[in-house]
Amino acid sequence: MPARRGFDRTNAPCIGIGIENEMAQNIYDKPEFFAGYSALQRSVEGLGGAAEWPAIRARMPDLKGKRVIDLGCGFGWFSRWAQEQEAAHVLGVDLSENMIARAKADTNDQGIEYEIANLDHYELPKHAFDFAYSSLAFHYISDFKRLIATIHEGLLPGAHLLFTIEHPIYMAPTRPGWQATEGGKLWPVNQYSVEGRRITDWLAKGVVKYHRTLGTTLNTLIDNGFSIQHVEEWQPDDDQIKRNPDLAEERERPMILIVDAQRTF
Amino acid sequence: MPARRGFDRTNAPCIGIGIENEMAQNIYDKPEFFAGYSALQRSVEGLGGAAEWPAIRARMPDLKGKRVIDLGCGFGWFSRWAQEQEAAHVLGVDLSENMIARAKADTNDQGIEYEIANLDHYELPKHAFDFAYSSLAFHYISDFKRLIATIHEGLLPGAHLLFTIEHPIYMAPTRPGWQATEGGKLWPVNQYSVEGRRITDWLAKGVVKYHRTLGTTLNTLIDNGFSIQHVEEWQPDDDQIKRNPDLAEERERPMILIVDAQRTF
Repeated sequence: MPARRGFDRTNAPCIGIGIENEMAQNIYDKPEFFAGYSALQRSVEGLGGAAEWPAIRARMPDLKGKRVIDLGCGFGWFSRWAQEQEAAHVLGVDLSENMIARAKADTNDQGIEYEIANLDHYELPKHAFDFAYSSLAFHYISDFKRLIATIHEGLLPGAHLLFTIEHPIYMAPTRPGWQATEGGKLWPVNQYSVEGRRITDWLAKGVVKYHRTLGTTLNTLIDNGFSIQHVEEWQPDDDQIKRNPDLAEERERPMILIVDAQRTF
Repeated sequence: MPARRGFDRTNAPCIGIGIENEMAQNIYDKPEFFAGYSALQRSVEGLGGAAEWPAIRARMPDLKGKRVIDLGCGFGWFSRWAQEQEAAHVLGVDLSENMIARAKADTNDQGIEYEIANLDHYELPKHAFDFAYSSLAFHYISDFKRLIATIHEGLLPGAHLLFTIEHPIYMAPTRPGWQATEGGKLWPVNQYSVEGRRITDWLAKGVVKYHRTLGTTLNTLIDNGFSIQHVEEWQPDDDQIKRNPDLAEERERPMILIVDAQRTF
Protein backbone atom coordinates (compact mmCIF):
# COMPACT_ATOMS: atom_id res chain seq x y z
CA MET A 1 0.00 0.00 0.00
CA PRO A 2 1.14 3.52 -0.54
CA ALA A 3 3.13 5.26 2.10
CA ARG A 4 1.03 7.61 4.12
CA ARG A 5 1.60 11.01 5.55
CA GLY A 6 0.17 11.83 8.87
CA PHE A 7 1.86 9.61 11.37
CA ASP A 8 4.16 12.51 11.28
CA ARG A 9 3.57 14.63 14.32
CA THR A 10 3.94 13.27 17.78
CA ASN A 11 5.93 13.57 20.93
CA ALA A 12 8.58 11.22 22.15
CA PRO A 13 7.36 8.90 24.87
CA CYS A 14 8.52 9.72 28.37
CA ILE A 15 6.86 6.93 30.28
CA GLY A 16 6.56 7.87 33.92
CA ILE A 17 7.21 11.53 33.24
CA GLY A 18 4.42 14.07 33.24
CA ILE A 19 2.46 15.19 30.23
CA GLU A 20 4.13 18.59 30.13
CA ASN A 21 7.51 16.99 29.61
CA GLU A 22 6.12 14.84 26.86
CA MET A 23 4.71 17.87 25.16
CA ALA A 24 8.02 19.63 25.10
CA GLN A 25 9.56 16.91 22.98
CA ASN A 26 9.47 16.88 19.24
CA ILE A 27 10.03 13.55 17.57
CA TYR A 28 9.46 14.93 14.06
CA ASP A 29 12.79 16.66 13.96
CA LYS A 30 14.73 13.55 14.98
CA PRO A 31 16.88 12.69 11.95
CA GLU A 32 15.53 9.17 11.43
CA PHE A 33 11.91 10.29 11.70
CA PHE A 34 12.37 13.28 9.42
CA ALA A 35 14.20 11.19 6.82
CA GLY A 36 11.46 8.56 6.84
CA TYR A 37 8.74 11.16 6.71
CA SER A 38 10.39 12.95 3.81
CA ALA A 39 10.42 9.71 1.78
CA LEU A 40 6.68 9.00 2.15
CA GLN A 41 4.71 9.02 -1.06
CA ARG A 42 2.49 11.82 0.23
CA SER A 43 5.54 13.84 1.26
CA VAL A 44 7.05 13.52 -2.21
CA GLU A 45 3.93 13.75 -4.37
CA GLY A 46 1.80 15.95 -2.14
CA LEU A 47 -1.97 15.66 -1.89
CA GLY A 48 -2.17 13.38 -4.94
CA GLY A 49 0.04 10.89 -3.11
CA ALA A 50 -2.58 10.45 -0.36
CA ALA A 51 -5.27 7.91 -1.27
CA GLU A 52 -7.87 9.62 0.92
CA TRP A 53 -7.41 13.04 -0.74
CA PRO A 54 -10.25 12.65 -3.30
CA ALA A 55 -12.69 11.97 -0.44
CA ILE A 56 -11.44 15.03 1.46
CA ARG A 57 -11.54 17.13 -1.71
CA ALA A 58 -15.21 16.20 -2.17
CA ARG A 59 -16.03 17.84 1.18
CA MET A 60 -13.97 20.99 0.57
CA PRO A 61 -15.87 24.29 0.51
CA ASP A 62 -15.02 27.00 -2.01
CA LEU A 63 -11.89 28.62 -0.58
CA LYS A 64 -11.87 31.67 -2.83
CA GLY A 65 -11.32 34.75 -0.72
CA LYS A 66 -11.27 32.71 2.50
CA ARG A 67 -8.86 32.95 5.40
CA VAL A 68 -7.59 29.42 6.00
CA ILE A 69 -5.65 27.73 8.79
CA ASP A 70 -3.83 24.42 8.18
CA LEU A 71 -3.18 22.72 11.53
CA GLY A 72 -0.21 20.40 11.28
CA CYS A 73 0.78 21.65 7.83
CA GLY A 74 3.97 19.57 7.45
CA PHE A 75 5.62 20.47 4.14
CA GLY A 76 2.78 22.85 3.27
CA TRP A 77 1.16 20.85 0.46
CA PHE A 78 -2.37 21.72 1.55
CA SER A 79 -1.48 25.34 2.35
CA ARG A 80 -0.24 25.80 -1.22
CA TRP A 81 -3.28 24.01 -2.64
CA ALA A 82 -5.57 26.36 -0.68
CA GLN A 83 -3.68 29.30 -2.12
CA GLU A 84 -4.19 27.90 -5.62
CA GLN A 85 -7.93 27.94 -4.85
CA GLU A 86 -7.53 31.70 -4.37
CA ALA A 87 -7.77 31.73 -0.60
CA ALA A 88 -7.22 35.26 0.72
CA HIS A 89 -4.68 34.11 3.28
CA VAL A 90 -3.35 30.79 4.56
CA LEU A 91 -1.64 30.13 7.88
CA GLY A 92 0.20 26.81 8.16
CA VAL A 93 1.15 25.68 11.66
CA ASP A 94 3.46 22.84 12.58
CA LEU A 95 5.62 21.81 15.51
CA SER A 96 8.50 20.66 13.33
CA GLU A 97 11.19 23.22 12.57
CA ASN A 98 12.50 21.03 9.76
CA MET A 99 9.09 20.71 8.16
CA ILE A 100 8.35 24.41 8.39
CA ALA A 101 11.78 25.21 6.93
CA ARG A 102 11.03 22.92 4.01
CA ALA A 103 7.49 24.33 3.64
CA LYS A 104 8.91 27.85 3.44
CA ALA A 105 11.55 26.81 0.92
CA ASP A 106 8.90 25.17 -1.27
CA THR A 107 6.52 28.12 -1.12
CA ASN A 108 6.75 31.22 -3.24
CA ASP A 109 3.64 33.07 -2.29
CA GLN A 110 3.04 36.12 -0.13
CA GLY A 111 -0.41 34.87 0.84
CA ILE A 112 0.93 31.92 2.85
CA GLU A 113 2.41 32.31 6.29
CA TYR A 114 4.04 29.51 8.31
CA GLU A 115 4.39 29.27 12.05
CA ILE A 116 6.18 26.82 14.32
CA ALA A 117 3.87 25.90 17.19
CA ASN A 118 2.76 22.94 19.30
CA LEU A 119 -0.94 22.29 18.73
CA ASP A 120 -1.21 21.02 22.28
CA HIS A 121 -0.72 24.60 23.47
CA TYR A 122 -1.46 26.73 20.43
CA GLU A 123 -4.23 29.31 20.69
CA LEU A 124 -5.88 30.57 17.54
CA PRO A 125 -6.56 34.28 17.22
CA LYS A 126 -10.28 34.94 17.69
CA HIS A 127 -12.64 35.08 14.71
CA ALA A 128 -9.68 35.09 12.34
CA PHE A 129 -10.51 32.22 9.96
CA ASP A 130 -13.20 31.14 7.53
CA PHE A 131 -11.96 27.56 7.27
CA ALA A 132 -9.81 25.22 9.35
CA TYR A 133 -8.15 22.10 7.95
CA SER A 134 -6.06 19.38 9.49
CA SER A 135 -4.71 16.16 8.03
CA LEU A 136 -3.78 13.27 10.34
CA ALA A 137 -2.52 15.46 13.17
CA PHE A 138 -5.18 15.51 15.89
CA HIS A 139 -4.56 11.95 17.10
CA TYR A 140 -1.21 13.19 18.39
CA ILE A 141 -2.92 15.78 20.59
CA SER A 142 -3.44 14.86 24.24
CA ASP A 143 -6.09 17.48 25.04
CA PHE A 144 -8.55 17.35 22.16
CA LYS A 145 -11.19 19.38 23.99
CA ARG A 146 -8.81 22.31 24.51
CA LEU A 147 -7.82 22.23 20.84
CA ILE A 148 -11.42 22.14 19.60
CA ALA A 149 -12.36 25.00 21.91
CA THR A 150 -9.59 27.23 20.52
CA ILE A 151 -10.43 26.27 16.92
CA HIS A 152 -14.03 27.23 17.69
CA GLU A 153 -12.84 30.64 18.88
CA GLY A 154 -10.64 31.06 15.84
CA LEU A 155 -13.41 30.42 13.33
CA LEU A 156 -16.30 32.64 12.34
CA PRO A 157 -19.81 31.29 12.96
CA GLY A 158 -20.79 29.11 10.00
CA ALA A 159 -17.17 28.26 9.16
CA HIS A 160 -16.17 24.62 8.66
CA LEU A 161 -13.51 22.51 10.32
CA LEU A 162 -12.54 19.62 8.03
CA PHE A 163 -10.07 17.14 9.47
CA THR A 164 -8.78 13.62 9.28
CA ILE A 165 -7.45 11.43 12.06
CA GLU A 166 -6.46 7.83 12.41
CA HIS A 167 -9.69 5.88 12.85
CA PRO A 168 -10.26 4.64 16.41
CA ILE A 169 -10.64 1.05 15.15
CA TYR A 170 -7.09 1.44 13.84
CA MET A 171 -5.88 3.24 16.97
CA ALA A 172 -7.47 1.23 19.74
CA PRO A 173 -5.63 -2.12 19.79
CA THR A 174 -2.77 -2.48 22.21
CA ARG A 175 -0.96 -4.50 19.51
CA PRO A 176 -2.27 -3.19 16.19
CA GLY A 177 -1.72 -5.41 13.20
CA TRP A 178 -3.29 -7.83 10.74
CA GLN A 179 -3.97 -11.49 11.31
CA ALA A 180 -3.79 -13.55 8.14
CA THR A 181 -6.37 -16.35 8.00
CA GLU A 182 -7.63 -18.65 5.27
CA GLY A 183 -10.76 -16.55 5.04
CA GLY A 184 -8.80 -13.33 4.62
CA LYS A 185 -7.29 -10.63 6.79
CA LEU A 186 -8.60 -9.84 10.26
CA TRP A 187 -7.93 -6.75 12.38
CA PRO A 188 -8.24 -7.72 16.05
CA VAL A 189 -9.63 -4.93 18.20
CA ASN A 190 -9.29 -4.63 21.95
CA GLN A 191 -9.36 -1.80 24.52
CA TYR A 192 -11.64 0.24 22.28
CA SER A 193 -13.36 1.98 25.18
CA VAL A 194 -10.12 2.60 27.06
CA GLU A 195 -9.00 5.99 25.84
CA GLY A 196 -5.52 7.41 26.15
CA ARG A 197 -1.95 6.79 25.06
CA ARG A 198 -1.01 4.26 22.43
CA ILE A 199 2.67 3.76 21.71
CA THR A 200 3.78 2.42 18.34
CA ASP A 201 6.93 2.28 16.26
CA TRP A 202 6.53 4.18 13.03
CA LEU A 203 9.50 5.88 11.36
CA ALA A 204 10.94 6.09 14.90
CA LYS A 205 10.51 4.01 18.01
CA GLY A 206 7.99 4.98 20.67
CA VAL A 207 5.63 7.25 18.75
CA VAL A 208 2.86 8.36 21.14
CA LYS A 209 -0.70 8.74 19.91
CA TYR A 210 -3.90 9.39 21.83
CA HIS A 211 -6.81 7.05 21.21
CA ARG A 212 -10.31 8.43 21.59
CA THR A 213 -13.54 6.68 20.69
CA LEU A 214 -15.45 7.97 17.68
CA GLY A 215 -18.19 9.00 20.10
CA THR A 216 -15.77 11.14 22.13
CA THR A 217 -14.41 12.82 19.01
CA LEU A 218 -17.90 13.73 17.78
CA ASN A 219 -19.31 14.66 21.19
CA THR A 220 -16.33 16.95 21.87
CA LEU A 221 -17.16 18.82 18.67
CA ILE A 222 -20.91 18.93 19.41
CA ASP A 223 -20.38 20.04 23.02
CA ASN A 224 -18.06 22.84 21.92
CA GLY A 225 -20.27 24.57 19.39
CA PHE A 226 -19.89 22.52 16.22
CA SER A 227 -22.54 20.64 14.27
CA ILE A 228 -21.51 17.43 12.56
CA GLN A 229 -21.96 17.73 8.78
CA HIS A 230 -20.37 14.50 7.58
CA VAL A 231 -18.55 11.51 9.04
CA GLU A 232 -16.62 9.32 6.64
CA GLU A 233 -14.78 6.16 7.51
CA TRP A 234 -12.57 6.32 4.48
CA GLN A 235 -12.35 3.40 2.09
CA PRO A 236 -10.72 3.23 -1.33
CA ASP A 237 -13.02 3.21 -4.33
CA ASP A 238 -13.00 0.43 -6.95
CA ASP A 239 -10.72 2.35 -9.31
CA GLN A 240 -8.14 2.93 -6.59
CA ILE A 241 -8.10 -0.78 -5.72
CA LYS A 242 -7.80 -1.67 -9.40
CA ARG A 243 -4.72 0.55 -9.68
CA ASN A 244 -3.31 -0.57 -6.33
CA PRO A 245 -4.73 -3.94 -5.17
CA ASP A 246 -2.96 -3.63 -1.81
CA LEU A 247 -5.48 -0.94 -0.91
CA ALA A 248 -8.26 -3.56 -0.71
CA GLU A 249 -7.37 -4.30 2.90
CA GLU A 250 -8.58 -0.83 3.83
CA ARG A 251 -12.13 -2.17 3.39
CA GLU A 252 -11.56 -4.77 6.11
CA ARG A 253 -11.16 -2.03 8.73
CA PRO A 254 -11.02 1.74 8.34
CA MET A 255 -7.69 3.46 8.97
CA ILE A 256 -8.71 7.06 8.37
CA LEU A 257 -11.65 9.03 9.71
CA ILE A 258 -12.78 12.19 7.89
CA VAL A 259 -14.98 14.65 9.81
CA ASP A 260 -16.64 17.78 8.47
CA ALA A 261 -17.97 20.01 11.26
CA GLN A 262 -19.44 23.50 11.20
CA ARG A 263 -19.24 26.18 13.85
CA THR A 264 -22.85 26.84 14.83
CA PHE A 265 -22.63 29.73 17.29
CA MET B 1 -22.93 -11.36 30.75
CA PRO B 2 -26.61 -10.63 31.06
CA ALA B 3 -28.93 -11.70 28.32
CA ARG B 4 -29.81 -8.90 25.99
CA ARG B 5 -32.95 -7.87 24.27
CA GLY B 6 -32.71 -6.56 20.81
CA PHE B 7 -31.50 -9.34 18.62
CA ASP B 8 -35.18 -9.84 18.60
CA ARG B 9 -36.57 -8.49 15.40
CA THR B 10 -35.43 -9.72 12.07
CA ASN B 11 -36.56 -11.61 9.02
CA ALA B 12 -35.81 -15.17 8.13
CA PRO B 13 -33.04 -15.53 5.57
CA CYS B 14 -34.14 -16.47 2.08
CA ILE B 15 -30.82 -16.52 0.33
CA GLY B 16 -31.29 -16.13 -3.37
CA ILE B 17 -34.83 -14.82 -3.01
CA GLY B 18 -35.67 -11.16 -3.43
CA ILE B 19 -35.76 -8.65 -0.62
CA GLU B 20 -39.54 -8.35 -0.75
CA ASN B 21 -39.92 -12.03 0.05
CA GLU B 22 -37.52 -11.71 2.93
CA MET B 23 -39.47 -8.81 4.32
CA ALA B 24 -42.69 -10.80 4.41
CA GLN B 25 -41.22 -13.27 6.86
CA ASN B 26 -41.31 -12.86 10.61
CA ILE B 27 -38.83 -14.87 12.61
CA TYR B 28 -39.90 -13.35 15.95
CA ASP B 29 -43.07 -15.36 16.09
CA LYS B 30 -41.34 -18.68 15.43
CA PRO B 31 -41.82 -20.70 18.63
CA GLU B 32 -38.12 -21.25 19.37
CA PHE B 33 -37.25 -17.58 18.83
CA PHE B 34 -40.17 -16.29 20.86
CA ALA B 35 -39.42 -18.69 23.73
CA GLY B 36 -35.78 -17.64 23.80
CA TYR B 37 -36.65 -13.98 23.56
CA SER B 38 -39.17 -14.25 26.36
CA ALA B 39 -36.51 -15.71 28.66
CA LEU B 40 -33.99 -12.88 28.18
CA GLN B 41 -33.16 -10.89 31.27
CA ARG B 42 -34.39 -7.71 29.62
CA SER B 43 -37.62 -9.41 28.59
CA VAL B 44 -38.29 -10.58 32.13
CA GLU B 45 -37.02 -7.58 34.11
CA GLY B 46 -37.73 -4.83 31.59
CA LEU B 47 -35.56 -1.74 31.18
CA GLY B 48 -33.66 -2.44 34.40
CA GLY B 49 -32.50 -5.74 32.89
CA ALA B 50 -30.68 -3.94 30.08
CA ALA B 51 -27.18 -2.81 31.05
CA GLU B 52 -27.25 0.11 28.60
CA TRP B 53 -30.51 1.53 29.97
CA PRO B 54 -28.87 4.02 32.42
CA ALA B 55 -26.92 5.53 29.51
CA ILE B 56 -30.09 5.82 27.41
CA ARG B 57 -32.01 7.21 30.37
CA ALA B 58 -29.39 9.96 30.73
CA ARG B 59 -30.22 11.20 27.22
CA MET B 60 -33.99 11.04 27.66
CA PRO B 61 -35.88 14.33 27.33
CA ASP B 62 -38.78 15.17 29.65
CA LEU B 63 -41.68 13.15 28.24
CA LYS B 64 -44.44 14.86 30.22
CA GLY B 65 -47.28 15.74 27.87
CA LYS B 66 -45.38 14.40 24.84
CA ARG B 67 -46.65 12.17 22.06
CA VAL B 68 -44.21 9.28 21.86
CA ILE B 69 -43.59 6.51 19.32
CA ASP B 70 -41.68 3.33 20.31
CA LEU B 71 -40.37 1.65 17.16
CA GLY B 72 -39.86 -2.06 17.76
CA CYS B 73 -41.62 -1.98 21.13
CA GLY B 74 -41.45 -5.73 21.87
CA PHE B 75 -43.23 -6.41 25.16
CA GLY B 76 -43.89 -2.71 25.66
CA TRP B 77 -41.49 -2.06 28.54
CA PHE B 78 -40.41 1.32 27.21
CA SER B 79 -43.94 2.29 26.14
CA ARG B 80 -45.13 1.77 29.71
CA TRP B 81 -42.14 3.62 31.13
CA ALA B 82 -42.92 6.59 28.85
CA GLN B 83 -46.49 6.57 30.14
CA GLU B 84 -45.17 6.61 33.71
CA GLN B 85 -43.29 9.77 32.75
CA GLU B 86 -46.70 11.28 31.97
CA ALA B 87 -46.43 11.17 28.19
CA ALA B 88 -49.68 12.34 26.61
CA HIS B 89 -49.84 9.35 24.29
CA VAL B 90 -47.60 6.42 23.37
CA LEU B 91 -47.73 4.33 20.22
CA GLY B 92 -45.78 1.06 20.33
CA VAL B 93 -45.11 -0.61 16.99
CA ASP B 94 -43.76 -4.12 16.44
CA LEU B 95 -43.81 -6.74 13.73
CA SER B 96 -44.38 -9.62 16.15
CA GLU B 97 -47.98 -10.57 16.83
CA ASN B 98 -46.88 -12.56 19.87
CA MET B 99 -44.99 -9.63 21.33
CA ILE B 100 -47.80 -7.16 20.73
CA ALA B 101 -50.30 -9.61 22.29
CA ARG B 102 -48.09 -9.83 25.35
CA ALA B 103 -47.54 -6.07 25.41
CA LYS B 104 -51.30 -5.49 25.40
CA ALA B 105 -51.86 -8.09 28.12
CA ASP B 106 -49.21 -6.42 30.31
CA THR B 107 -50.55 -2.90 29.77
CA ASN B 108 -53.45 -1.38 31.62
CA ASP B 109 -53.40 2.17 30.38
CA GLN B 110 -55.64 3.99 27.94
CA GLY B 111 -52.78 6.25 26.87
CA ILE B 112 -50.81 3.46 25.19
CA GLU B 113 -51.72 2.06 21.81
CA TYR B 114 -50.02 -0.90 20.15
CA GLU B 115 -49.82 -1.66 16.46
CA ILE B 116 -48.48 -4.63 14.50
CA ALA B 117 -46.37 -3.33 11.62
CA ASN B 118 -43.17 -4.05 9.71
CA LEU B 119 -40.76 -1.14 10.16
CA ASP B 120 -39.34 -1.86 6.73
CA HIS B 121 -42.62 -0.58 5.24
CA TYR B 122 -44.24 1.38 8.05
CA GLU B 123 -45.07 5.02 7.43
CA LEU B 124 -45.47 7.35 10.37
CA PRO B 125 -48.36 9.82 10.32
CA LYS B 126 -47.04 13.31 9.60
CA HIS B 127 -46.12 15.67 12.45
CA ALA B 128 -47.73 13.33 14.95
CA PHE B 129 -44.96 12.82 17.52
CA ASP B 130 -42.79 14.83 19.89
CA PHE B 131 -40.33 12.01 20.52
CA ALA B 132 -39.28 8.80 18.76
CA TYR B 133 -37.51 5.93 20.50
CA SER B 134 -36.13 2.63 19.31
CA SER B 135 -34.10 0.00 21.12
CA LEU B 136 -31.95 -2.44 19.13
CA ALA B 137 -34.34 -2.70 16.19
CA PHE B 138 -32.90 -0.60 13.34
CA HIS B 139 -30.08 -3.01 12.49
CA TYR B 140 -32.78 -5.40 11.26
CA ILE B 141 -34.05 -2.83 8.77
CA SER B 142 -32.81 -3.17 5.20
CA ASP B 143 -33.70 0.36 4.03
CA PHE B 144 -32.48 2.67 6.78
CA LYS B 145 -32.83 5.79 4.64
CA ARG B 146 -36.53 5.15 4.00
CA LEU B 147 -37.14 4.57 7.71
CA ILE B 148 -35.32 7.73 8.76
CA ALA B 149 -37.20 9.78 6.16
CA THR B 150 -40.57 8.63 7.50
CA ILE B 151 -39.51 9.18 11.12
CA HIS B 152 -38.50 12.71 10.09
CA GLU B 153 -41.97 13.27 8.67
CA GLY B 154 -43.60 11.85 11.77
CA LEU B 155 -41.75 14.14 14.18
CA LEU B 156 -42.29 17.82 14.82
CA PRO B 157 -39.32 20.12 14.13
CA GLY B 158 -37.10 20.15 17.22
CA ALA B 159 -38.21 16.68 18.32
CA HIS B 160 -35.63 14.03 19.18
CA LEU B 161 -35.04 10.54 17.85
CA LEU B 162 -33.16 8.47 20.42
CA PHE B 163 -32.19 4.98 19.34
CA THR B 164 -29.79 2.13 19.91
CA ILE B 165 -28.45 -0.36 17.39
CA GLU B 166 -25.80 -3.02 17.41
CA HIS B 167 -22.48 -1.24 16.98
CA PRO B 168 -20.94 -1.68 13.52
CA ILE B 169 -17.73 -3.03 15.07
CA TYR B 170 -19.90 -5.79 16.51
CA MET B 171 -21.91 -6.20 13.31
CA ALA B 172 -19.22 -6.07 10.65
CA PRO B 173 -17.27 -9.34 10.98
CA THR B 174 -18.27 -12.20 8.75
CA ARG B 175 -17.57 -14.52 11.70
CA PRO B 176 -18.21 -12.45 14.81
CA GLY B 177 -16.71 -13.76 18.02
CA TRP B 178 -13.97 -13.41 20.61
CA GLN B 179 -10.43 -14.68 20.31
CA ALA B 180 -8.92 -15.59 23.67
CA THR B 181 -5.21 -14.74 23.93
CA GLU B 182 -2.73 -14.56 26.77
CA GLY B 183 -2.99 -10.80 26.66
CA GLY B 184 -6.78 -10.87 26.90
CA LYS B 185 -9.75 -10.99 24.59
CA LEU B 186 -9.59 -9.79 20.99
CA TRP B 187 -12.50 -9.01 18.65
CA PRO B 188 -11.31 -9.55 15.08
CA VAL B 189 -12.91 -7.14 12.61
CA ASN B 190 -13.17 -7.62 8.87
CA GLN B 191 -15.44 -6.39 6.06
CA TYR B 192 -16.16 -3.20 8.01
CA SER B 193 -16.65 -1.10 4.87
CA VAL B 194 -18.71 -3.76 3.13
CA GLU B 195 -22.27 -2.93 4.10
CA GLY B 196 -25.24 -5.23 3.84
CA ARG B 197 -26.56 -8.52 5.16
CA ARG B 198 -24.98 -10.39 8.04
CA ILE B 199 -26.45 -13.75 8.98
CA THR B 200 -26.01 -15.08 12.50
CA ASP B 201 -27.57 -17.68 14.73
CA TRP B 202 -29.20 -16.13 17.78
CA LEU B 203 -32.24 -17.70 19.40
CA ALA B 204 -32.96 -19.12 15.96
CA LYS B 205 -30.78 -20.04 13.01
CA GLY B 206 -30.21 -17.62 10.17
CA VAL B 207 -31.08 -14.29 11.77
CA VAL B 208 -30.52 -11.56 9.16
CA LYS B 209 -29.11 -8.17 10.18
CA TYR B 210 -27.97 -5.25 8.04
CA HIS B 211 -24.52 -3.87 8.72
CA ARG B 212 -23.93 -0.20 8.03
CA THR B 213 -20.84 1.80 8.93
CA LEU B 214 -21.14 4.35 11.71
CA GLY B 215 -20.54 7.01 9.07
CA THR B 216 -23.49 5.80 6.98
CA THR B 217 -25.80 5.74 10.01
CA LEU B 218 -24.88 9.31 10.98
CA ASN B 219 -24.81 10.70 7.43
CA THR B 220 -28.24 9.20 6.70
CA LEU B 221 -29.59 11.12 9.68
CA ILE B 222 -27.79 14.34 8.73
CA ASP B 223 -28.82 14.13 5.08
CA ASN B 224 -32.45 13.62 6.05
CA GLY B 225 -32.97 16.61 8.30
CA PHE B 226 -31.55 15.53 11.65
CA SER B 227 -28.71 17.05 13.62
CA ILE B 228 -26.53 14.72 15.67
CA GLN B 229 -26.74 15.58 19.36
CA HIS B 230 -24.83 12.71 20.93
CA VAL B 231 -23.09 9.52 19.82
CA GLU B 232 -22.28 6.98 22.51
CA GLU B 233 -20.43 3.75 22.00
CA TRP B 234 -21.85 2.19 25.11
CA GLN B 235 -19.57 0.74 27.76
CA PRO B 236 -20.41 -0.46 31.26
CA ASP B 237 -19.39 1.78 34.15
CA ASP B 238 -17.14 0.60 36.99
CA ASP B 239 -20.07 -0.21 39.28
CA GLN B 240 -21.71 -2.36 36.65
CA ILE B 241 -18.50 -4.32 36.11
CA LYS B 242 -18.08 -4.73 39.87
CA ARG B 243 -21.55 -6.23 40.09
CA ASN B 244 -21.11 -8.29 36.92
CA PRO B 245 -17.43 -8.85 36.00
CA ASP B 246 -18.40 -10.51 32.71
CA LEU B 247 -19.42 -7.07 31.46
CA ALA B 248 -15.74 -6.00 31.37
CA GLU B 249 -15.37 -7.44 27.88
CA GLU B 250 -17.71 -4.75 26.59
CA ARG B 251 -14.80 -2.32 26.98
CA GLU B 252 -12.70 -4.34 24.52
CA ARG B 253 -15.13 -3.58 21.70
CA PRO B 254 -18.48 -1.76 21.76
CA MET B 255 -21.60 -3.84 21.16
CA ILE B 256 -24.23 -1.13 21.38
CA LEU B 257 -24.39 2.28 19.74
CA ILE B 258 -26.64 4.99 21.21
CA VAL B 259 -27.55 7.94 18.97
CA ASP B 260 -29.48 11.05 19.95
CA ALA B 261 -30.60 13.08 16.90
CA GLN B 262 -32.88 16.07 16.59
CA ARG B 263 -35.17 17.01 13.72
CA THR B 264 -33.88 20.36 12.52
CA PHE B 265 -36.35 21.41 9.83
